[in-house]
Amino acid sequence: MRYAYVNGRFCRHGDAAIHIEDRGFQFADAVYEVWSVRNSQLMDADGHFSRLSRSLGELRIPEPRTRPALERVICELLRRNRLRNGLVYLQISRGQARRDHAFPKTPITPTIVLTCKRLDFVAADARAEAGIAVITVPDQRWARCDIKTVNLLPNVLAKQAAQEAGAVEAWQVDAAGFITEGSSTNAWIVTKAGKLLTRQADHGILHGITRARILECAQKLGLEVEERAFTPQEAREAREAFLTSATSFVTPVVSIDNHVIANGQPGSLASALREAYLAEA
Amino acid sequence: MRYAYVNGRFCRHGDAAIHIEDRGFQFADAVYEVWSVRNSQLMDADGHFSRLSRSLGELRIPEPRTRPALERVICELLRRNRLRNGLVYLQISRGQARRDHAFPKTPITPTIVLTCKRLDFVAADARAEAGIAVITVPDQRWARCDIKTVNLLPNVLAKQAAQEAGAVEAWQVDAAGFITEGSSTNAWIVTKAGKLLTRQADHGILHGITRARILECAQKLGLEVEERAFTPQEAREAREAFLTSATSFVTPVVSIDNHVIANGQPGSLASALREAYLAEA
Repeated sequence: MRYAYVNGRFCRHGDAAIHIEDRGFQFADAVYEVWSVRNSQLMDADGHFSRLSRSLGELRIPEPRTRPALERVICELLRRNRLRNGLVYLQISRGQARRDHAFPKTPITPTIVLTCKRLDFVAADARAEAGIAVITVPDQRWARCDIKTVNLLPNVLAKQAAQEAGAVEAWQVDAAGFITEGSSTNAWIVTKAGKLLTRQADHGILHGITRARILECAQKLGLEVEERAFTPQEAREAREAFLTSATSFVTPVVSIDNHVIANGQPGSLASALREAYLAEA
Repeated sequence: MRYAYVNGRFCRHGDAAIHIEDRGFQFADAVYEVWSVRNSQLMDADGHFSRLSRSLGELRIPEPRTRPALERVICELLRRNRLRNGLVYLQISRGQARRDHAFPKTPITPTIVLTCKRLDFVAADARAEAGIAVITVPDQRWARCDIKTVNLLPNVLAKQAAQEAGAVEAWQVDAAGFITEGSSTNAWIVTKAGKLLTRQADHGILHGITRARILECAQKLGLEVEERAFTPQEAREAREAFLTSATSFVTPVVSIDNHVIANGQPGSLASALREAYLAEA
Protein backbone atom coordinates (compact mmCIF):
# COMPACT_ATOMS: atom_id res chain seq x y z
CA MET A 1 0.00 0.00 0.00
CA ARG A 2 1.28 3.44 -0.95
CA TYR A 3 0.48 6.43 1.25
CA ALA A 4 0.35 10.17 0.65
CA TYR A 5 -0.20 13.07 3.06
CA VAL A 6 -2.73 15.77 2.25
CA ASN A 7 -3.67 18.64 4.54
CA GLY A 8 -2.98 16.98 7.85
CA ARG A 9 -3.96 13.43 7.01
CA PHE A 10 -2.26 10.31 5.70
CA CYS A 11 -4.33 8.56 3.05
CA ARG A 12 -4.02 5.89 0.38
CA HIS A 13 -2.12 7.38 -2.52
CA GLY A 14 -4.90 6.42 -4.93
CA ASP A 15 -7.46 8.34 -2.85
CA ALA A 16 -5.31 11.44 -2.31
CA ALA A 17 -7.23 14.39 -3.72
CA ILE A 18 -7.48 18.15 -3.66
CA HIS A 19 -10.46 20.35 -4.44
CA ILE A 20 -11.02 21.46 -8.05
CA GLU A 21 -10.82 25.09 -6.89
CA ASP A 22 -7.41 24.67 -5.36
CA ARG A 23 -5.32 27.58 -6.62
CA GLY A 24 -2.52 25.17 -7.42
CA PHE A 25 -4.79 23.55 -10.03
CA GLN A 26 -6.46 26.71 -11.40
CA PHE A 27 -3.58 29.22 -11.31
CA ALA A 28 -0.33 27.27 -10.72
CA ASP A 29 -0.28 29.32 -7.50
CA ALA A 30 1.92 26.82 -5.65
CA VAL A 31 5.53 25.93 -4.87
CA TYR A 32 7.26 22.60 -4.40
CA GLU A 33 10.43 20.88 -3.25
CA VAL A 34 12.02 17.51 -3.92
CA TRP A 35 14.47 15.76 -1.60
CA SER A 36 16.46 12.66 -2.41
CA VAL A 37 16.27 10.05 0.33
CA ARG A 38 19.28 7.79 0.91
CA ASN A 39 19.32 5.29 3.74
CA SER A 40 16.17 6.96 5.12
CA GLN A 41 17.89 10.35 5.33
CA LEU A 42 16.85 13.50 3.45
CA MET A 43 19.77 14.75 1.39
CA ASP A 44 20.62 18.44 1.72
CA ALA A 45 17.64 18.87 4.04
CA ASP A 46 18.67 22.38 5.15
CA GLY A 47 19.08 23.74 1.65
CA HIS A 48 15.71 22.51 0.46
CA PHE A 49 13.85 23.72 3.56
CA SER A 50 15.49 27.14 3.21
CA ARG A 51 14.54 27.39 -0.46
CA LEU A 52 10.98 26.32 0.38
CA SER A 53 10.71 29.21 2.84
CA ARG A 54 12.08 31.61 0.25
CA SER A 55 9.67 30.42 -2.46
CA LEU A 56 6.69 30.78 -0.11
CA GLY A 57 7.91 34.21 0.95
CA GLU A 58 8.29 35.45 -2.62
CA LEU A 59 4.64 34.50 -3.29
CA ARG A 60 3.48 35.64 0.16
CA ILE A 61 2.02 32.23 0.94
CA PRO A 62 2.13 31.77 4.72
CA GLU A 63 4.28 28.86 5.93
CA PRO A 64 1.66 26.30 6.91
CA ARG A 65 3.95 24.20 9.13
CA THR A 66 7.19 24.72 10.99
CA ARG A 67 10.18 22.86 9.66
CA PRO A 68 10.23 20.39 12.59
CA ALA A 69 6.54 19.65 12.01
CA LEU A 70 7.16 19.03 8.30
CA GLU A 71 10.12 16.81 9.13
CA ARG A 72 7.98 14.72 11.47
CA VAL A 73 5.38 14.24 8.73
CA ILE A 74 8.03 13.32 6.17
CA CYS A 75 9.57 10.84 8.58
CA GLU A 76 6.18 9.20 9.17
CA LEU A 77 5.48 9.17 5.41
CA LEU A 78 8.75 7.33 4.76
CA ARG A 79 7.97 4.88 7.56
CA ARG A 80 4.47 4.13 6.27
CA ASN A 81 5.79 3.61 2.76
CA ARG A 82 8.79 1.61 3.99
CA LEU A 83 10.94 3.82 1.80
CA ARG A 84 14.68 3.96 2.43
CA ASN A 85 15.91 5.15 -0.97
CA GLY A 86 13.99 7.42 -3.31
CA LEU A 87 12.56 10.90 -3.21
CA VAL A 88 10.09 13.00 -1.24
CA TYR A 89 7.87 15.47 -3.11
CA LEU A 90 6.26 18.36 -1.23
CA GLN A 91 3.82 20.81 -2.84
CA ILE A 92 2.24 23.77 -1.06
CA SER A 93 -0.42 25.85 -2.81
CA ARG A 94 -2.00 29.07 -1.63
CA GLY A 95 -5.12 27.03 -0.88
CA GLN A 96 -8.69 26.63 -2.05
CA ALA A 97 -10.85 29.63 -2.91
CA ARG A 98 -13.60 30.79 -5.24
CA ARG A 99 -11.81 31.43 -8.53
CA ASP A 100 -10.41 34.95 -8.83
CA HIS A 101 -6.89 35.86 -9.95
CA ALA A 102 -5.98 38.07 -7.00
CA PHE A 103 -5.10 36.57 -3.62
CA PRO A 104 -8.23 35.73 -1.58
CA LYS A 105 -9.28 38.73 0.51
CA THR A 106 -9.82 36.63 3.62
CA PRO A 107 -6.95 34.37 4.71
CA ILE A 108 -7.18 30.76 3.54
CA THR A 109 -5.27 27.69 4.62
CA PRO A 110 -2.49 26.59 2.27
CA THR A 111 -2.81 23.13 0.77
CA ILE A 112 -0.02 20.69 1.66
CA VAL A 113 0.65 17.55 -0.36
CA LEU A 114 3.46 15.10 0.37
CA THR A 115 4.31 11.96 -1.56
CA CYS A 116 7.34 9.72 -1.81
CA LYS A 117 8.51 7.15 -4.29
CA ARG A 118 11.32 4.67 -4.73
CA LEU A 119 14.13 5.65 -7.09
CA ASP A 120 16.50 3.29 -8.81
CA PHE A 121 19.83 4.85 -7.86
CA VAL A 122 21.65 1.94 -9.53
CA ALA A 123 20.11 2.95 -12.88
CA ALA A 124 21.10 6.57 -12.18
CA ASP A 125 24.65 5.45 -11.47
CA ALA A 126 24.71 3.55 -14.76
CA ARG A 127 23.43 6.62 -16.59
CA ALA A 128 26.13 8.72 -14.96
CA GLU A 129 28.75 6.23 -16.12
CA ALA A 130 27.53 6.28 -19.73
CA GLY A 131 26.78 9.99 -19.98
CA ILE A 132 23.66 11.47 -21.55
CA ALA A 133 22.64 13.51 -24.60
CA VAL A 134 21.06 16.97 -24.34
CA ILE A 135 19.48 19.26 -26.92
CA THR A 136 19.01 23.02 -26.82
CA VAL A 137 15.60 24.72 -27.06
CA PRO A 138 14.46 28.34 -26.70
CA ASP A 139 13.81 29.29 -23.08
CA GLN A 140 10.08 30.11 -23.06
CA ARG A 141 9.65 30.42 -19.30
CA TRP A 142 8.53 33.33 -17.17
CA ALA A 143 10.80 35.93 -15.60
CA ARG A 144 11.04 34.41 -12.10
CA CYS A 145 12.48 30.93 -12.54
CA ASP A 146 14.31 31.44 -9.24
CA ILE A 147 11.02 30.72 -7.43
CA LYS A 148 10.34 26.98 -7.40
CA THR A 149 6.73 27.12 -8.57
CA VAL A 150 4.57 24.64 -10.47
CA ASN A 151 4.36 26.99 -13.49
CA LEU A 152 6.14 24.16 -15.26
CA LEU A 153 4.39 23.84 -18.63
CA PRO A 154 7.37 25.29 -20.57
CA ASN A 155 9.63 22.84 -18.72
CA VAL A 156 7.25 20.01 -19.66
CA LEU A 157 7.40 21.00 -23.33
CA ALA A 158 11.20 21.28 -23.22
CA LYS A 159 11.62 17.85 -21.59
CA GLN A 160 9.20 16.31 -24.10
CA ALA A 161 11.18 17.86 -26.98
CA ALA A 162 14.35 16.33 -25.55
CA GLN A 163 12.83 12.86 -25.33
CA GLU A 164 11.45 13.06 -28.85
CA ALA A 165 14.95 13.98 -30.05
CA GLY A 166 16.38 10.92 -28.30
CA ALA A 167 17.97 13.03 -25.57
CA VAL A 168 17.51 13.06 -21.80
CA GLU A 169 17.42 16.78 -21.10
CA ALA A 170 16.84 20.11 -22.89
CA TRP A 171 19.13 23.06 -22.17
CA GLN A 172 17.13 26.23 -22.54
CA VAL A 173 18.61 29.20 -24.39
CA ASP A 174 17.52 32.74 -23.52
CA ALA A 175 16.83 35.59 -25.94
CA ALA A 176 20.44 36.78 -25.66
CA GLY A 177 21.70 33.39 -26.81
CA PHE A 178 22.91 32.03 -23.47
CA ILE A 179 22.04 28.71 -21.88
CA THR A 180 20.00 29.22 -18.72
CA GLU A 181 19.50 25.67 -17.41
CA GLY A 182 17.83 22.35 -18.16
CA SER A 183 14.10 21.71 -17.77
CA SER A 184 14.69 20.18 -14.33
CA THR A 185 18.46 20.41 -13.86
CA ASN A 186 21.24 23.02 -13.76
CA ALA A 187 23.77 23.15 -16.61
CA TRP A 188 27.58 23.12 -16.31
CA ILE A 189 30.61 22.97 -18.58
CA VAL A 190 34.37 22.75 -18.15
CA THR A 191 36.23 24.95 -20.62
CA LYS A 192 39.24 23.77 -22.58
CA ALA A 193 41.33 25.78 -20.10
CA GLY A 194 39.85 23.70 -17.29
CA LYS A 195 37.55 26.32 -15.78
CA LEU A 196 34.18 25.19 -14.37
CA LEU A 197 31.25 27.35 -15.58
CA THR A 198 27.63 27.51 -14.48
CA ARG A 199 25.18 30.35 -14.88
CA GLN A 200 24.99 32.94 -12.12
CA ALA A 201 22.00 32.38 -9.83
CA ASP A 202 19.81 35.28 -10.99
CA HIS A 203 16.04 35.37 -11.61
CA GLY A 204 16.52 33.36 -14.81
CA ILE A 205 17.35 30.01 -13.20
CA LEU A 206 16.40 27.89 -10.25
CA HIS A 207 18.93 28.20 -7.45
CA GLY A 208 19.70 24.50 -7.35
CA ILE A 209 20.57 23.15 -3.92
CA THR A 210 22.76 20.50 -5.53
CA ARG A 211 24.25 23.25 -7.72
CA ALA A 212 25.32 25.14 -4.57
CA ARG A 213 26.78 21.99 -3.02
CA ILE A 214 28.73 21.17 -6.19
CA LEU A 215 30.20 24.70 -6.13
CA GLU A 216 31.41 23.95 -2.59
CA CYS A 217 32.84 20.59 -3.68
CA ALA A 218 34.62 22.28 -6.61
CA GLN A 219 36.25 24.78 -4.26
CA LYS A 220 37.39 22.01 -1.94
CA LEU A 221 38.88 20.21 -4.94
CA GLY A 222 40.74 23.43 -5.81
CA LEU A 223 39.00 23.86 -9.17
CA GLU A 224 38.77 27.23 -10.89
CA VAL A 225 35.10 28.20 -10.98
CA GLU A 226 33.17 31.04 -12.59
CA GLU A 227 29.45 31.68 -12.28
CA ARG A 228 28.49 33.15 -15.64
CA ALA A 229 26.24 32.37 -18.59
CA PHE A 230 27.72 30.42 -21.51
CA THR A 231 26.51 29.80 -25.05
CA PRO A 232 25.64 26.56 -26.88
CA GLN A 233 28.81 27.06 -28.92
CA GLU A 234 30.93 27.26 -25.77
CA ALA A 235 29.20 24.08 -24.61
CA ARG A 236 29.91 22.26 -27.88
CA GLU A 237 33.58 23.22 -27.62
CA ALA A 238 33.86 22.38 -23.93
CA ARG A 239 36.21 19.82 -22.45
CA GLU A 240 33.32 18.47 -20.35
CA ALA A 241 29.65 19.14 -19.72
CA PHE A 242 27.33 17.90 -17.02
CA LEU A 243 24.09 18.65 -15.20
CA THR A 244 23.09 18.63 -11.56
CA SER A 245 19.82 18.02 -9.72
CA ALA A 246 18.59 16.82 -6.35
CA THR A 247 17.67 13.40 -7.67
CA SER A 248 20.40 12.78 -10.27
CA PHE A 249 23.26 14.53 -8.39
CA VAL A 250 25.87 14.96 -11.17
CA THR A 251 25.26 13.48 -14.61
CA PRO A 252 27.87 13.85 -17.38
CA VAL A 253 26.67 15.16 -20.75
CA VAL A 254 28.40 13.62 -23.75
CA SER A 255 26.56 15.30 -26.62
CA ILE A 256 24.72 18.55 -27.30
CA ASP A 257 22.38 18.78 -30.29
CA ASN A 258 24.03 15.59 -31.63
CA HIS A 259 27.45 17.24 -31.44
CA VAL A 260 29.82 14.99 -29.50
CA ILE A 261 31.57 16.75 -26.63
CA ALA A 262 35.32 16.14 -26.39
CA ASN A 263 35.90 12.39 -26.85
CA GLY A 264 32.27 11.48 -26.15
CA GLN A 265 33.05 10.02 -22.73
CA PRO A 266 32.03 11.37 -19.31
CA GLY A 267 34.56 13.90 -18.11
CA SER A 268 36.89 13.31 -15.21
CA LEU A 269 35.86 16.44 -13.30
CA ALA A 270 32.18 15.53 -13.52
CA SER A 271 32.94 12.10 -12.15
CA ALA A 272 35.14 13.54 -9.39
CA LEU A 273 32.43 16.02 -8.40
CA ARG A 274 29.79 13.28 -8.36
CA GLU A 275 31.96 11.19 -6.07
CA ALA A 276 32.81 14.12 -3.84
CA TYR A 277 29.14 15.08 -3.51
CA LEU A 278 28.00 11.55 -2.68
CA ALA A 279 30.84 11.09 -0.21
CA GLU A 280 29.76 14.22 1.67
CA ALA A 281 26.01 13.66 1.47
CA MET B 1 -26.93 23.03 -3.62
CA ARG B 2 -24.14 23.83 -6.04
CA TYR B 3 -22.96 21.23 -8.55
CA ALA B 4 -19.77 20.70 -10.50
CA TYR B 5 -18.86 18.18 -13.17
CA VAL B 6 -15.64 16.17 -12.93
CA ASN B 7 -14.59 13.41 -15.32
CA GLY B 8 -18.01 12.24 -16.39
CA ARG B 9 -19.93 12.79 -13.17
CA PHE B 10 -21.94 15.56 -11.58
CA CYS B 11 -21.11 16.02 -7.92
CA ARG B 12 -21.62 18.48 -5.09
CA HIS B 13 -19.28 21.40 -5.66
CA GLY B 14 -17.80 21.00 -2.19
CA ASP B 15 -16.89 17.38 -2.90
CA ALA B 16 -15.47 18.00 -6.36
CA ALA B 17 -11.88 16.79 -6.35
CA ILE B 18 -9.02 15.75 -8.55
CA HIS B 19 -6.08 13.50 -7.74
CA ILE B 20 -2.92 15.08 -6.27
CA GLU B 21 -0.93 13.73 -9.21
CA ASP B 22 -3.12 15.45 -11.77
CA ARG B 23 -0.74 17.16 -14.18
CA GLY B 24 -2.83 20.30 -13.95
CA PHE B 25 -1.87 20.55 -10.27
CA GLN B 26 1.78 19.47 -10.53
CA PHE B 27 2.83 21.03 -13.85
CA ALA B 28 0.12 23.54 -14.88
CA ASP B 29 -0.27 21.14 -17.82
CA ALA B 30 -3.86 22.20 -18.52
CA VAL B 31 -5.99 24.62 -20.53
CA TYR B 32 -9.26 26.36 -19.73
CA GLU B 33 -12.12 28.41 -21.15
CA VAL B 34 -14.69 30.76 -19.66
CA TRP B 35 -18.05 31.56 -21.23
CA SER B 36 -20.47 34.23 -20.07
CA VAL B 37 -24.02 32.94 -19.74
CA ARG B 38 -26.88 35.35 -20.43
CA ASN B 39 -30.46 34.15 -20.35
CA SER B 40 -29.16 30.59 -20.19
CA GLN B 41 -27.20 31.00 -23.44
CA LEU B 42 -23.43 30.70 -23.82
CA MET B 43 -22.08 33.93 -25.28
CA ASP B 44 -19.71 33.55 -28.26
CA ALA B 45 -19.96 29.79 -27.92
CA ASP B 46 -18.26 29.11 -31.27
CA GLY B 47 -15.25 31.30 -30.58
CA HIS B 48 -14.54 29.76 -27.20
CA PHE B 49 -14.97 26.17 -28.41
CA SER B 50 -12.63 26.88 -31.34
CA ARG B 51 -10.00 28.37 -29.06
CA LEU B 52 -10.32 25.40 -26.70
CA SER B 53 -9.54 23.05 -29.58
CA ARG B 54 -6.57 25.17 -30.57
CA SER B 55 -5.17 25.29 -27.01
CA LEU B 56 -5.49 21.50 -26.66
CA GLY B 57 -3.88 21.02 -30.06
CA GLU B 58 -0.91 23.26 -29.21
CA LEU B 59 -0.22 21.13 -26.13
CA ARG B 60 -1.11 17.87 -27.89
CA ILE B 61 -3.74 17.03 -25.30
CA PRO B 62 -6.37 14.87 -27.03
CA GLU B 63 -9.88 16.36 -27.11
CA PRO B 64 -11.67 14.33 -24.45
CA ARG B 65 -15.23 15.13 -25.67
CA THR B 66 -16.83 16.29 -28.87
CA ARG B 67 -18.26 19.79 -28.83
CA PRO B 68 -21.88 18.54 -28.81
CA ALA B 69 -21.08 16.28 -25.86
CA LEU B 70 -19.50 19.19 -23.95
CA GLU B 71 -22.50 21.38 -24.75
CA ARG B 72 -24.88 18.77 -23.38
CA VAL B 73 -22.89 18.59 -20.15
CA ILE B 74 -22.78 22.39 -19.82
CA CYS B 75 -26.53 22.60 -20.44
CA GLU B 76 -27.18 20.03 -17.71
CA LEU B 77 -24.76 21.83 -15.34
CA LEU B 78 -26.66 25.10 -15.83
CA ARG B 79 -29.98 23.32 -15.27
CA ARG B 80 -28.81 21.62 -12.06
CA ASN B 81 -27.46 24.91 -10.74
CA ARG B 82 -30.54 26.85 -11.93
CA LEU B 83 -28.15 29.34 -13.45
CA ARG B 84 -29.43 31.75 -16.10
CA ASN B 85 -26.83 34.52 -15.83
CA GLY B 86 -23.20 34.05 -14.90
CA LEU B 87 -20.24 32.15 -16.25
CA VAL B 88 -19.17 28.62 -17.08
CA TYR B 89 -15.58 27.56 -16.34
CA LEU B 90 -14.08 24.56 -18.14
CA GLN B 91 -10.61 23.19 -17.38
CA ILE B 92 -9.00 20.25 -19.16
CA SER B 93 -5.66 18.88 -17.98
CA ARG B 94 -3.50 16.25 -19.64
CA GLY B 95 -4.63 13.88 -16.89
CA GLN B 96 -3.25 12.02 -13.92
CA ALA B 97 0.11 10.26 -14.03
CA ARG B 98 3.14 9.38 -11.94
CA ARG B 99 5.10 12.64 -11.73
CA ASP B 100 7.55 13.12 -14.60
CA HIS B 101 7.95 16.29 -16.67
CA ALA B 102 7.60 14.66 -20.10
CA PHE B 103 4.20 13.55 -21.42
CA PRO B 104 3.21 10.11 -20.08
CA LYS B 105 4.51 7.38 -22.38
CA THR B 106 1.23 5.48 -22.33
CA PRO B 107 -1.93 7.43 -23.21
CA ILE B 108 -3.88 8.78 -20.24
CA THR B 109 -7.38 10.21 -20.02
CA PRO B 110 -7.55 14.01 -19.79
CA THR B 111 -9.18 15.44 -16.68
CA ILE B 112 -12.33 17.52 -17.31
CA VAL B 113 -13.67 19.96 -14.72
CA LEU B 114 -16.73 22.16 -15.25
CA THR B 115 -18.17 24.68 -12.82
CA CYS B 116 -20.53 27.59 -13.12
CA LYS B 117 -21.30 30.57 -10.96
CA ARG B 118 -23.67 33.49 -10.88
CA LEU B 119 -22.32 36.87 -11.95
CA ASP B 120 -23.72 40.22 -11.00
CA PHE B 121 -24.04 41.80 -14.44
CA VAL B 122 -25.72 44.85 -12.85
CA ALA B 123 -22.55 45.54 -10.86
CA ALA B 124 -20.51 45.06 -14.04
CA ASP B 125 -22.76 47.56 -15.83
CA ALA B 126 -22.24 50.05 -13.01
CA ARG B 127 -18.49 49.56 -13.22
CA ALA B 128 -18.62 50.14 -16.97
CA GLU B 129 -20.51 53.38 -16.38
CA ALA B 130 -17.99 54.66 -13.85
CA GLY B 131 -14.83 53.45 -15.58
CA ILE B 132 -11.91 51.78 -13.85
CA ALA B 133 -8.27 52.45 -12.96
CA VAL B 134 -5.39 50.35 -14.29
CA ILE B 135 -1.70 50.26 -13.46
CA THR B 136 1.22 49.04 -15.56
CA VAL B 137 3.58 46.24 -14.47
CA PRO B 138 6.41 44.37 -16.21
CA ASP B 139 5.15 41.43 -18.26
CA GLN B 140 6.76 38.44 -16.56
CA ARG B 141 4.89 35.72 -18.40
CA TRP B 142 6.11 32.93 -20.63
CA ALA B 143 6.52 33.11 -24.39
CA ARG B 144 3.22 31.42 -25.38
CA CYS B 145 0.46 33.55 -23.86
CA ASP B 146 -1.64 32.78 -26.95
CA ILE B 147 -2.35 29.33 -25.47
CA LYS B 148 -5.02 29.61 -22.76
CA THR B 149 -3.21 27.57 -20.09
CA VAL B 150 -3.36 27.65 -16.31
CA ASN B 151 0.28 28.86 -16.09
CA LEU B 152 -1.28 31.92 -14.48
CA LEU B 153 0.95 32.75 -11.54
CA PRO B 154 2.39 35.90 -13.21
CA ASN B 155 -1.17 36.98 -13.98
CA VAL B 156 -2.09 36.37 -10.33
CA LEU B 157 0.80 38.55 -9.17
CA ALA B 158 -0.10 41.29 -11.66
CA LYS B 159 -3.77 41.34 -10.60
CA GLN B 160 -2.78 41.39 -6.94
CA ALA B 161 -0.43 44.34 -7.59
CA ALA B 162 -3.31 46.18 -9.27
CA GLN B 163 -5.64 45.64 -6.35
CA GLU B 164 -3.01 46.73 -3.84
CA ALA B 165 -2.56 49.93 -5.88
CA GLY B 166 -6.30 50.58 -5.72
CA ALA B 167 -6.77 49.64 -9.38
CA VAL B 168 -8.86 46.95 -11.05
CA GLU B 169 -6.46 45.64 -13.67
CA ALA B 170 -2.72 45.59 -14.47
CA TRP B 171 -1.56 46.24 -18.04
CA GLN B 172 1.61 44.26 -18.62
CA VAL B 173 4.54 45.89 -20.41
CA ASP B 174 6.99 43.76 -22.41
CA ALA B 175 10.78 44.12 -22.53
CA ALA B 176 10.50 46.42 -25.56
CA GLY B 177 8.29 48.82 -23.60
CA PHE B 178 4.94 47.96 -25.18
CA ILE B 179 1.73 47.03 -23.43
CA THR B 180 0.79 43.42 -24.13
CA GLU B 181 -2.53 43.01 -22.30
CA GLY B 182 -4.14 42.92 -18.86
CA SER B 183 -3.83 40.02 -16.43
CA SER B 184 -7.20 38.65 -17.58
CA THR B 185 -8.34 41.16 -20.22
CA ASN B 186 -7.18 42.62 -23.56
CA ALA B 187 -6.08 46.28 -23.68
CA TRP B 188 -7.32 48.97 -26.09
CA ILE B 189 -6.91 52.69 -26.64
CA VAL B 190 -8.37 55.30 -28.96
CA THR B 191 -5.75 57.75 -30.19
CA LYS B 192 -6.28 61.50 -30.27
CA ALA B 193 -6.82 61.11 -34.02
CA GLY B 194 -9.67 58.70 -33.28
CA LYS B 195 -7.98 55.47 -34.29
CA LEU B 196 -8.73 52.31 -32.31
CA LEU B 197 -5.58 50.38 -31.27
CA THR B 198 -5.12 46.94 -29.77
CA ARG B 199 -2.05 44.72 -29.87
CA GLN B 200 -1.72 42.29 -32.78
CA ALA B 201 -2.68 38.74 -31.80
CA ASP B 202 0.80 37.18 -31.71
CA HIS B 203 2.27 34.71 -29.21
CA GLY B 204 2.53 37.50 -26.63
CA ILE B 205 -1.18 37.83 -25.85
CA LEU B 206 -4.29 35.76 -25.47
CA HIS B 207 -6.40 35.88 -28.60
CA GLY B 208 -9.47 37.18 -26.84
CA ILE B 209 -12.78 35.99 -28.24
CA THR B 210 -14.41 39.21 -27.09
CA ARG B 211 -11.44 41.10 -28.58
CA ALA B 212 -12.19 39.55 -31.99
CA ARG B 213 -15.90 40.38 -31.69
CA ILE B 214 -15.16 43.98 -30.73
CA LEU B 215 -12.94 44.30 -33.82
CA GLU B 216 -15.95 43.19 -35.88
CA CYS B 217 -18.22 45.65 -34.08
CA ALA B 218 -15.70 48.45 -34.72
CA GLN B 219 -15.65 47.70 -38.42
CA LYS B 220 -19.43 47.71 -38.58
CA LEU B 221 -19.42 51.08 -36.82
CA GLY B 222 -16.99 52.34 -39.47
CA LEU B 223 -14.16 53.01 -37.00
CA GLU B 224 -10.55 53.18 -38.07
CA VAL B 225 -8.74 50.25 -36.44
CA GLU B 226 -5.12 49.17 -36.23
CA GLU B 227 -3.79 46.03 -34.56
CA ARG B 228 -0.41 47.08 -33.19
CA ALA B 229 1.37 47.37 -29.88
CA PHE B 230 1.23 50.70 -28.05
CA THR B 231 3.22 52.14 -25.15
CA PRO B 232 2.11 53.30 -21.69
CA GLN B 233 2.84 56.86 -22.84
CA GLU B 234 0.52 56.46 -25.82
CA ALA B 235 -2.09 55.11 -23.42
CA ARG B 236 -1.70 58.07 -21.05
CA GLU B 237 -2.15 60.49 -23.95
CA ALA B 238 -5.07 58.58 -25.48
CA ARG B 239 -8.53 59.98 -26.05
CA GLU B 240 -9.99 56.79 -24.57
CA ALA B 241 -8.85 53.50 -23.13
CA PHE B 242 -10.75 50.34 -22.33
CA LEU B 243 -10.40 46.62 -21.80
CA THR B 244 -12.32 43.61 -23.05
CA SER B 245 -12.98 40.13 -21.67
CA ALA B 246 -15.57 37.38 -21.91
CA THR B 247 -17.12 38.23 -18.56
CA SER B 248 -16.77 42.03 -18.48
CA PHE B 249 -17.35 42.64 -22.23
CA VAL B 250 -16.09 46.26 -22.64
CA THR B 251 -14.97 48.23 -19.59
CA PRO B 252 -13.76 51.84 -19.96
CA VAL B 253 -10.43 52.73 -18.33
CA VAL B 254 -10.28 56.24 -16.88
CA SER B 255 -6.79 56.27 -15.37
CA ILE B 256 -3.43 54.60 -15.95
CA ASP B 257 -0.82 54.62 -13.17
CA ASN B 258 -2.88 57.38 -11.49
CA HIS B 259 -2.69 59.49 -14.65
CA VAL B 260 -6.21 60.56 -15.65
CA ILE B 261 -7.06 59.72 -19.26
CA ALA B 262 -8.69 62.56 -21.23
CA ASN B 263 -11.41 64.06 -19.02
CA GLY B 264 -11.54 61.10 -16.64
CA GLN B 265 -14.88 59.89 -17.95
CA PRO B 266 -15.63 56.70 -19.91
CA GLY B 267 -15.13 57.35 -23.61
CA SER B 268 -17.93 57.42 -26.12
CA LEU B 269 -16.43 54.79 -28.42
CA ALA B 270 -15.98 52.36 -25.55
CA SER B 271 -19.60 52.82 -24.57
CA ALA B 272 -20.76 52.46 -28.18
CA LEU B 273 -18.74 49.26 -28.61
CA ARG B 274 -20.11 47.84 -25.37
CA GLU B 275 -23.65 48.51 -26.53
CA ALA B 276 -23.00 47.13 -30.00
CA TYR B 277 -21.47 43.97 -28.57
CA LEU B 278 -24.30 43.34 -26.11
CA ALA B 279 -26.91 44.05 -28.79
CA GLU B 280 -25.38 41.40 -31.04
CA ALA B 281 -24.62 38.81 -28.37
